Amino acid sequence: MTERAGERALVVLSGGQDSTTCLYWALNRFGEDNVTTLTFDYGQRHRIELDCARQVAAFAGVDNTCLPIDTFAALGGDALTDDTIDVREGVLPETGLPNTFVPGRNLVFLTFAAAFAYQRDIEDIVTGVAQTDYSGYPDCRDETIRALQQAIRLGMESDITIHTPLMHLSKRETVELVRDLGGLDAMALTHTCYNGQRPPCGQCPACELRARGFAEAGIEDPLVRAT
Amino acid sequence: MTERAGERALVVLSGGQDSTTCLYWALNRFGEDNVTTLTFDYGQRHRIELDCARQVAAFAGVDNTCLPIDTFAALGGDALTDDTIDVREGVLPETGLPNTFVPGRNLVFLTFAAAFAYQRDIEDIVTGVAQTDYSGYPDCRDETIRALQQAIRLGMESDITIHTPLMHLSKRETVELVRDLGGLDAMALTHTCYNGQRPPCGQCPACELRARGFAEAGIEDPLVRAT
Repeated sequence: MTERAGERALVVLSGGQDSTTCLYWALNRFGEDNVTTLTFDYGQRHRIELDCARQVAAFAGVDNTCLPIDTFAALGGDALTDDTIDVREGVLPETGLPNTFVPGRNLVFLTFAAAFAYQRDIEDIVTGVAQTDYSGYPDCRDETIRALQQAIRLGMESDITIHTPLMHLSKRETVELVRDLGGLDAMALTHTCYNGQRPPCGQCPACELRARGFAEAGIEDPLVRAT
Repeated sequence: MTERAGERALVVLSGGQDSTTCLYWALNRFGEDNVTTLTFDYGQRHRIELDCARQVAAFAGVDNTCLPIDTFAALGGDALTDDTIDVREGVLPETGLPNTFVPGRNLVFLTFAAAFAYQRDIEDIVTGVAQTDYSGYPDCRDETIRALQQAIRLGMESDITIHTPLMHLSKRETVELVRDLGGLDAMALTHTCYNGQRPPCGQCPACELRARGFAEAGIEDPLVRAT
């Protein structure tokens, strides 16, 4: 990977494992003076994610902006923003999608990220979406992101590129990547647990997926060690 | 135009001339029992638009849901949501775009509309964007809307269609269309003026464009007559 000095990048930072890995990918590729981060306060049940994003950015020495999105909570109907719905394993029989699916969530995040980047003459956006290891979020797939990039380029008359360095990596490979990029210590500050617990519950699908990735990479999770 | 009984449609209703024309287009095509409307409260300077949308929907006998979007105001920097910026004629020298341009505004509106429709098993969305007569909003162009439709279909695994009945119509043809659809009286309830005035200021680019359309169609604007 070569550093692209002078070009600036915006990392969509949720405070989780994947977006933190992307932050270190961007630091390596664009240089630490050229990276900024954006976090969305969309009414997620676990406010700890916002703290984690702030702490990860501070630890990495980059700015973090938090933008509110009150629309998903008003739309309602999904387990990640609606306190009345339980996070269950598996899929909803009605849709075949996980019940943590917020229709179009990543489309909205990336469009707002593009607007934020547009205002700052930033043309490179980095997001941690991946189509491997996931339970079927269609808005994380490569072809969706490519179609959205085209809509954003046309709709904003910009040359924005959406980078998805984790798109085809397994969780094991993601763990190895952040280690190779020197970002393993930052993992202690990240948040993954669907149940919002710290130390992580270890039982929910997100915790299990994370644990399996670290186990397969043969690396102790700094978050588990720290909490 | 044939009525497509049983299929339901969602009209993105701003309370303006174009979206109101689209509402009558949808009533004609899908039948009045199958149409609902969605309005966005995105911090627009002129709150009168929200009242107009509600009144237009009530007049037409359809439901109206208002969804908040607080993100654009947090992003700042444009004349339609930022009180500190004047609406000027012409374009910004930095971008070549009108200074009323909110980057990605229609991309966000239509993605949220698609999420709202998804939750209700609605597959037809109607929006009043047009690439004629406009001063260069790239997110109103046909190729942008087609790219976004593809991103939404992939990202939500849905068969949503975004209808743009005004895309290639002149303002004159839009006036003639709403007359032919029996929606002319509803025009008295709409809002167009960029300066938020009622009766309309008659001087801003939006008022001038509207007036020219009615003049060319040889029809008196019900809004001007009513106020």
